[in-house]
This record gives sequence, C-alpha cells and structure tokens, in this order.
Amino acid sequence: MSKIIDLNSDVGESFGAYKIGLDKEVLKYVSSANIACGWHAGDPIVMRDTVKAAFKNSVSIGAHPGFFDVMGFGRRNMTVSPDEIKQYTIYQIGALYGFVKSAGAKMQHVKPHGAMYNMAAKDGKLAQAIIEGIWEVDRDLIVLGSSGSEMIKAAKEKGLRVANEVFADRAYNSDGTLVARSLPGAMILDTNIAILRVIRMVTEGKVTAISGEDVDIKADSICVHGDNPEATQFVRLIREELFKAKVEIKPLSQFIK
Amino acid sequence: MSKIIDLNSDVGESFGAYKIGLDKEVLKYVSSANIACGWHAGDPIVMRDTVKAAFKNSVSIGAHPGFFDVMGFGRRNMTVSPDEIKQYTIYQIGALYGFVKSAGAKMQHVKPHGAMYNMAAKDGKLAQAIIEGIWEVDRDLIVLGSSGSEMIKAAKEKGLRVANEVFADRAYNSDGTLVARSLPGAMILDTNIAILRVIRMVTEGKVTAISGEDVDIKADSICVHGDNPEATQFVRLIREELFKAKVEIKPLSQFIK
Amino acid sequence: MSKIIDLNSDVGESFGAYKIGLDKEVLKYVSSANIACGWHAGDPIVMRDTVKAAFKNSVSIGAHPGFFDVMGFGRRNMTVSPDEIKQYTIYQIGALYGFVKSAGAKMQHVKPHGAMYNMAAKDGKLAQAIIEGIWEVDRDLIVLGSSGSEMIKAAKEKGLRVANEVFADRAYNSDGTLVARSLPGAMILDTNIAILRVIRMVTEGKVTAISGEDVDIKADSICVHGDNPEATQFVRLIREELFKAKVEIKPLSQFIK
Amino acid sequence: MSKIIDLNSDVGESFGAYKIGLDKEVLKYVSSANIACGWHAGDPIVMRDTVKAAFKNSVSIGAHPGFFDVMGFGRRNMTVSPDEIKQYTIYQIGALYGFVKSAGAKMQHVKPHGAMYNMAAKDGKLAQAIIEGIWEVDRDLIVLGSSGSEMIKAAKEKGLRVANEVFADRAYNSDGTLVARSLPGAMILDTNIAILRVIRMVTEGKVTAISGEDVDIKADSICVHGDNPEATQFVRLIREELFKAKVEIKPLSQFIK
Repeated sequence: MSKIIDLNSDVGESFGAYKIGLDKEVLKYVSSANIACGWHAGDPIVMRDTVKAAFKNSVSIGAHPGFFDVMGFGRRNMTVSPDEIKQYTIYQIGALYGFVKSAGAKMQHVKPHGAMYNMAAKDGKLAQAIIEGIWEVDRDLIVLGSSGSEMIKAAKEKGLRVANEVFADRAYNSDGTLVARSLPGAMILDTNIAILRVIRMVTEGKVTAISGEDVDIKADSICVHGDNPEATQFVRLIREELFKAKVEIKPLSQFIK
Repeated sequence: MSKIIDLNSDVGESFGAYKIGLDKEVLKYVSSANIACGWHAGDPIVMRDTVKAAFKNSVSIGAHPGFFDVMGFGRRNMTVSPDEIKQYTIYQIGALYGFVKSAGAKMQHVKPHGAMYNMAAKDGKLAQAIIEGIWEVDRDLIVLGSSGSEMIKAAKEKGLRVANEVFADRAYNSDGTLVARSLPGAMILDTNIAILRVIRMVTEGKVTAISGEDVDIKADSICVHGDNPEATQFVRLIREELFKAKVEIKPLSQFIK
Repeated sequence: MSKIIDLNSDVGESFGAYKIGLDKEVLKYVSSANIACGWHAGDPIVMRDTVKAAFKNSVSIGAHPGFFDVMGFGRRNMTVSPDEIKQYTIYQIGALYGFVKSAGAKMQHVKPHGAMYNMAAKDGKLAQAIIEGIWEVDRDLIVLGSSGSEMIKAAKEKGLRVANEVFADRAYNSDGTLVARSLPGAMILDTNIAILRVIRMVTEGKVTAISGEDVDIKADSICVHGDNPEATQFVRLIREELFKAKVEIKPLSQFIK
Repeated sequence: MSKIIDLNSDVGESFGAYKIGLDKEVLKYVSSANIACGWHAGDPIVMRDTVKAAFKNSVSIGAHPGFFDVMGFGRRNMTVSPDEIKQYTIYQIGALYGFVKSAGAKMQHVKPHGAMYNMAAKDGKLAQAIIEGIWEVDRDLIVLGSSGSEMIKAAKEKGLRVANEVFADRAYNSDGTLVARSLPGAMILDTNIAILRVIRMVTEGKVTAISGEDVDIKADSICVHGDNPEATQFVRLIREELFKAKVEIKPLSQFIK
C-alpha cells in the first residue's frame, strides 16, 4: 500500500482588487498547486504571482481550468458540448503555460475546477473531451481526478498518467464515489475523524462508506483548502499525522507513473 | 532593396454567435495571420478553427493579443501599467500556443491588436514590457510592429527579430510614423495610388510623406484586411501587382533574420 | 376565437463591433420587439438605438433578459437558483427601463431569452422567481411566454397579464408543449404549411400535434425572426396571409387584459 | 455657513464569491450610499442585498456607475466617447432602479466611480454626457461630484441639483481641485489633521491648500471608506467630532435644493 501521498490545493483564485484564499500560507504545506487560469478566477497578474510563489516554495504546478463564469466562481453547471469543453481546456492550459515558461518552471498536472470537475467526473463524453485537450497540448501532464471518476477512466484509456484524489471532509458511497453534498452526512465535520479516514485511505487503501461497509479506494493526492485560518490549521495537522504514520508527502511527478 | 514581402491580416475575430471577417477568403491570399486570443475577440472554438485553417492554407501563425474589452473590440485605450500589459501578453500568447500545439503547428510572430498596438507604438515603457513578455515565453517569435515604432525599437534592443509593417491605406509623416486617423489626408482612399505606394515601399524603400517629401521606410510586411468583399478584392489586386513587380510573397519566418 | 394577433421578434442583439440581425427590416413588420439587455447580447449603445428604432416604428417594447453569457449567446443552460434568476431579471428589466425612460417610451412586456426562456418554461420554481422579479419592478408588464408553459402558469397565479406565444416553425406535442428540437419532425420546414398552421392557431385556436390529433392552443403572439433575408421575407408573407384571413396585427398592450 | 453635512461611502462592491468592504458596518454611520451597478463591481445579488441593507438602515441610495472592467475595479481610464459614457450611465442607473423599485425604496443621487469619476471631473464633454444621461432617466436625482469639478458645473448648467463632495484624506490645490495622488503630500495621513480639516471645510467653508493659503471650498458631503476596520473607526470618529462641532449629519435629499 502507498506510503507516499501528494497534498493539493486550489490557489491563485484572487481577481483584480478581489483577494481570496490564504495562498501564501497554504503554499508552505502542499506539494501540488492547482492554479486558476483566468476563466472562473485568477487574472494574469495573479497567475504570474502564483506560479512564482509555487515555484519558490517547490510546490508543483498544475492548471485549474474552469468555466468562463467569474460571477459564479466556476461553480455553476453549464450546458457545453464536448468540443467546447475540450477547447476551453486547451485555452486555459496554454494560458498558464505562458507564465510557467516565463518563470522557468514546469507544469505537472491538470485538475478541472468546480462545475467542470463535477460534470466531467460523471459524464464520460465530457471527460474524454477534456482528456483529448490535455493530450494534444502536452501528454506528459498528469490528470488529477476524483478517485473512481470518469476523468480517471478516460485518462487511463488515452494513456495519460493519473492521480486519484481523495477528500478528507467528504463521505463516500459504497462504489467509491462521493456522496452528493445535498445529502445528509455528505460532509465529515469532525476534524479528528476526517484525519483518521485520510490516514487509513493512504495507508490501507480503504474507507468506510456512508453505508457502513469498508470499500477500497485509491489515494494519490489529498485535496486540502486554504480559504481561512481553520483550513490552513487543518493542513498543518494533517501533515503532522501523516508524518507520524510514516507517510511521505511528495508532488505527483515524483511517484505517479 | 527587398524583393520579398509578407502579407499579414487580422483573423479569428468572430466570437460565439457573432461572425466577423472573411477569414476563409483572406487566408487564401496572405502569408501571415494575426489570430485573436480571446480578449478583444475570438473564443476557443474560433481560435482552434482559425489556427487549423491557417495551418491548412500554409499561412504562418501569429498571436494577436489585445485588451480585455470585447465590447470595444480592443480598440479603446486603457490605462494599464507596463507590468499589466506584459502579463496580458504572456497570457494570450500562451493561450494561442495551446491551439498551435494541438494542431501540430508553429507560432511565428506576435502583433498586438488595436489600442494595445497603438499605445505600444508610442510608449517605450509599454513596448518594452510587451517585448519582455514575448521574450520570456519564446524568444524565437518575430515581433511584427509598425515601421519606426517603439515596439520595433524595444524588440531590437532586447534581441528579438523584428518585421516592419507598412500600411497601403495610410499616409505617413516625414519621420516615418503614421499620420493620425483623425487628421485630414490620413487615409489613402484611391486604390491605385495605394497600390503604387506599397510597391514603391517594397521595391525602393521609400514613401512620399504627407508633407510631400520622399522618406525612407522599411517594409517587411503589408497589413491587409478581410472585413468585406472590397477588402479581399484589394488583397487579390495587390498580389497581382506585387507579382508583376517581381516581388515574392513569403511568410516572415522565411526571410526575417 | 381571437382575430387579433401580435407579431414579436428578438432584436437589439448586436454587440460592439459585432452586428447580428436585420433589425431595421424586421421592425417594419412586427408589433412587439424583445430587446436584449446586455447580458447575452446587446450593449448600451445598441439598446439605446433599438429602443429608439422600435419607438419610431410604433413597435411596442419588451425586455429580453438572458444569462450573462455573450460567448454562448445566452443559449446555454446554467445551474442558477430561483433567487439568482429573479435578481438577473430585475437587473436587466431595470437597465432597459433606463433607455425606455430616456426615449420617452413605455415598456410593454418581458420575454426571457434562450436558455432562460427554455428553463423557465419547464421549471415552475424558476418561472415563479422570474415572475416575482417582474412583479416587483412593474406589475403592468405583460409576460410573453410559450403557450402552456410554467411561465404562463406562474404569471397568471401572481396576477400578471400574460400573452401566449406560438411558433410558426415548430411542431407541438399533444399537451400543447413544443416538440424538443432534438427530435425528428420538431421543425416545420415547409413555409406554406407553417403559415397555414399559424393562421389556424390564430383563427381557430387549434393546431395539429405531431401525434396527428388536433389540440387546443392559445395564440396571442407569433414569434418571428430577423436573422436573414429569408426570415424577413417570411414575416412579410405571414403578414399578408393574416391580412387575407382578416386577422388584425396589434401590439399586446392593445388587446391583452 | 452650512451646519448640515452628508456622509457618503461606496458600498455593494462585492462580486460573486468575492467579498470586499465592511458594508454592514459602514452603513450604520453614513447617510448616503453609492451602490455599485454591476459594471466595475457588484452583481445582482449584491445589489439587491445592498439596496435592502441601505433602506433598512435609513441610508439614502445612490447609483455608482463605472466602466465595464471588473478586472481593473473600474479604476482604469478608458477612451470612451461622450455618447458611450452617457449610455453606460443610463444602463447602470436603470439597473439599480430595478432593485430600488423592488425594495420599495427611492433613488437619491448618482456618483460615478473611479476612472469615470476622475475623467468626468476634468473633461467637460464627458461630464455633460453623464449629466444628460442622468437628466433623461430622472431629473430629480442629485449629482454628487467633487467640489469644483466639471461634473458639478455641467449638472448646474443642465438644471440638476448638485452636492459638493470633499475628502478628509486628500490635499487640495489653491483652485479647489484635488492634488493628484501621484504628487507628494497628496494624502493627509494624520487622522487628527484630517478631521480638523473636514470640520473646518464644513463649518467655515475653507481649507488650507497645499500651497499654504486658505481657499474657499463648498462641502455638502464627506466621502468616507469602509474598506477595513481602521476606515470604519475613522468614520465613527468623524461622526463624534461633527457632533461636538454641532454639525448635523443628514442625507443629501434633506438639504440640497
């Protein structure tokens, strides 16, 4: 069972005069950063600053493309065709590449944001389209997707490397998918329980589903947040517990094959 | 004196349901295409289609970054800092690169659009900032700028290759700069005179300034338009006359050093 | 059975440098104009021009609010809450009111655009939210909605006046709703048949459903288009046939109670 | 000399997931609120909430139109024509009216934002165009402009009521205009001095210019900020000092004629 794990967080989501997220703080603790690409959040100044900050902190860089919807922060489902979602992905990966090249850095992975992430997790055609977009721009990129999602499936079929993402604060169904947020019990609110679950996912490859039974789960990366001081405190805590459990934290590129 | 010239045109400026420009037609006649990058015009579907169409027509591809102002088509001056204009350039070149890579094509040049072009032609600091952005993303890109502009000057200083652009339909001042559109006589309305002037700029390196005297001008590329049937008819005509004058039409990458 | 009918068309959908629709032509023939409010199409210059042109042509003015999605022309479904769609409606009606007041004109009706129209036709909660928005801004406004839709139902329940819209070029189900465009036979392609169907809807209140049976349908307004010369030719034709059938064309405000 | 003063603040500048400004706090202390209209900041949900909060706090409501530039927060000058700026003003006042009507409130005034405010303060043609826009929508609106600006001049000429705005934290030139922020001494950093200056502007109608001489200044409203706790603390302080100096705080509509 894996004794190496990646910690990823969404960063670079400020926009113009609007500041959001404790990026400076969270970049001290994670190994991979999902950087917004200007469509749901982020602007070119923010993207440049975030790429530089990640690079300086030795945090691996990933593109975090979303829908063209700053007003909805990319969280609202939109009816788009597979071709549209593919080109939207290419555009945003390309845009982030500009800053990555400018900084002399490398791009490690791609993780779609919000509604794009959720829609592609369930819709195979959208997932395949995003994967084609990534493949056509750079087939060395790792796809970071929800464990058991259509994204992971489509990436594997295409031949891209995949990293399975798990969530400390979310309940799982017995088929390994996430319990919808709208359902009772979807969120794991107790920090201690959340951490124990994560440690077990990483060290044993198992999680207790909402139905009570133990199910297999593949965990390559843990999604953590930097929205507020409690969130960054949780990231520090999870790092300590992973250390005690002798789990190493490394960016995806160092262990995903 | 140069007997080779490039013909360039702005293309890919449609947006969603909105169609503008006879791209299909004009791509038959030009050697270099300036492709909008989604900020003043163009969307990812249009960008993909335009990159593919240029590639198929053996037209060399260039990025055409502009201000984030679809409503004003990128034609309105905006007070931006050198750092902002630099990052806007990097973002848009990067975004177009996504489609260029996806198509298996190459990017040849960068030509800023509208207000960004005009502001950088006169403001050395903005010009230097744009040039730095281009340099940091890809120092093999050729800078296509108005003959005698600050852009050309800044690009040379930085060590980027430059291509001097001339206009068939515009009058020149005695210092080689363009007569402002707001002044009388700024536009050359007679097609025959426009063509004669262009041929002379290309073959003799001279143009008659609005003051009446002959001035030296460097012509590497002629800017032509595809807005309407008259414009594309003019492009066909200019090709014929260049042919008669034994001037070869080639993309910039084949003769700019 | 009604011998008066309104003809409505979507206008004012140009945006900046982008021109769309033969507004000048179609405003000669319709009695009510649905004017885009800047979110899916239209900008303040276009809105002012369109309000003035409608007023000059004695065409009654309606707000045509849509989703904030110029790239998708407001045709893409978006997951929005009832509260969001209500405030989006209020914003856009208000914005158009500015131009209506400035022109010394009146606002007659509201007809949501594209995806907003389609979603609200089927989703009672969204329909109620839009209706509340209209009610709170001006309860004298007439709601123009698809005959048999949730919009019509919600408007009646609230106490707003309603106008039932029918389509010349669309097939109907036996329950009076539109056959989805994705299904075979959804579009009536034969102009003569389309006109005969419309005349019958207006004069007899009946339409032959796709299943072959005659069903009752309420027709207060016919939706016509101004996208191209064929479309405006069709509008002229339908006017002639309505005249022959002794049906009067009047704006909604003159006969809806 | 006036013993009544208005306190105004920019509010409603959050946007989607992005929160900015301590609106809840500052609305307890000001008498007039300048509410963003969705172009430089604010979205329909924010506008509805802010109009309601102002109304509930008995704070008079004003429209705060700006340029269509969320990325630049409306602070960047843009080359727009007088006709454009007029229609942009009409659009935004109209949009806010929707929420004002929906809340059963009234609109008291208009104060342009950021770059629009600054450009119109100096450019008579832009000022006249904005004033025409206000006039055509509602000639009962009060124009809140910088004391001595072209806006005040244009509003008076047109016949609109005007309110002269003064700044506690800014230095003045001897002609009564603001010292440009880029110049040394432009900002009054000492809170005590700032308050003394404001009290004197209000009670004596005089301010010491940066050149050292006393100049006349008309003060109907003091611009205060709610960006951070220090700013709102300053507002509380200024209220106390105005109270001690026996100056009443009232919204513009109660004393501007």
